[in-house]
Amino acid sequence: MTGNTTETALLVIDMQKGYLNKDSIFFIDGAPETVPACAEAIRFCRAREIPVFFITRCYASDGSNVERSRLAAWERGGRPVSPGCAPELSIELPEAFGSDPRDHHIVKPRFSAFFATELDLLLRRLGVRELILIGTTTPNCIRTTCYDAIALDYDVTVFSDCTSSKTEEIQRANLYDMSGIGARILSSTEWMAERDR
Amino acid sequence: MTGNTTETALLVIDMQKGYLNKDSIFFIDGAPETVPACAEAIRFCRAREIPVFFITRCYASDGSNVERSRLAAWERGGRPVSPGCAPELSIELPEAFGSDPRDHHIVKPRFSAFFATELDLLLRRLGVRELILIGTTTPNCIRTTCYDAIALDYDVTVFSDCTSSKTEEIQRANLYDMSGIGARILSSTEWMAERDR
Repeated sequence: MTGNTTETALLVIDMQKGYLNKDSIFFIDGAPETVPACAEAIRFCRAREIPVFFITRCYASDGSNVERSRLAAWERGGRPVSPGCAPELSIELPEAFGSDPRDHHIVKPRFSAFFATELDLLLRRLGVRELILIGTTTPNCIRTTCYDAIALDYDVTVFSDCTSSKTEEIQRANLYDMSGIGARILSSTEWMAERDR
Repeated sequence: MTGNTTETALLVIDMQKGYLNKDSIFFIDGAPETVPACAEAIRFCRAREIPVFFITRCYASDGSNVERSRLAAWERGGRPVSPGCAPELSIELPEAFGSDPRDHHIVKPRFSAFFATELDLLLRRLGVRELILIGTTTPNCIRTTCYDAIALDYDVTVFSDCTSSKTEEIQRANLYDMSGIGARILSSTEWMAERDR
């Protein structure tokens, strides 16, 4: 069971130490708990030649590309997810994700993985039509990527167990809205079972 | 009290008959009730030389620019907000908004007012730094515009009484998430009082 027959890609968004560490101002409650399910989804996709894109946030050390609305908090918070910040606030991925020479890596300057990045160009070149979104945080980077993806005619699936929000209520409300514009909301195990059927 | 001293613009999003008529598949509960407050905000801004942008959705009659995820529903629903559809499903603005030769009109092909439009170019040319968002629907076109605006370094204010969702719960959840990324959430009357102080 290998081969990416339905032109699918997995986007792993903002799963970085700076979001997963509870001492970070960007910490998302619930995000660390999704690491094992994310790691399993990554492993599953690599084994089936489904391209895996790690989309990460890396702010400039001088703050020149931090959203203005969060610049002051970012400075007070030790400049997380930037070169030279403390290791526990860094841009690094969790060790559980491993690495593979076929992985794609994209740094994004804003919420959406498509905003001012070459992601759409790379996906077109690969013939990708369907995107699987995992990572954090559901209301910001997952959701903006979902809306841009649908605007760009991709089919979108969001894994409910591989995404996270500060509260269960926020998570539920955002998954509901995304389903309303046509995104599929599935657990990773449901999708993997469907994929291998 | 005239003059646009703080480089503000008002964006009126998707307030069209095709969203305001309860026989439309795109009808948003609560949107018709916001028409008077929207009309008052528009009047207030025109009187103070604050530029007013009407951002509207106009689908092609053949459906070629309808999001794929809603194409089938759009066809079944009588092809709302497209040329040649029934008048009650049309792209027209509510009569209460009136018109002014200084109004700007932009047609957008997707959710966000910035996606594949010249809006950002026009706002830069005018020196606009702060955007007021009103219209419908809060989780889709208001919110995607809000996130893109913040990504583009605009200050954003959303009027709670001039935006609408299918339920109060959806409205509340979305205003909460937008405030979390730095948008101001105010009623139109609060903002107008602040502006004229």
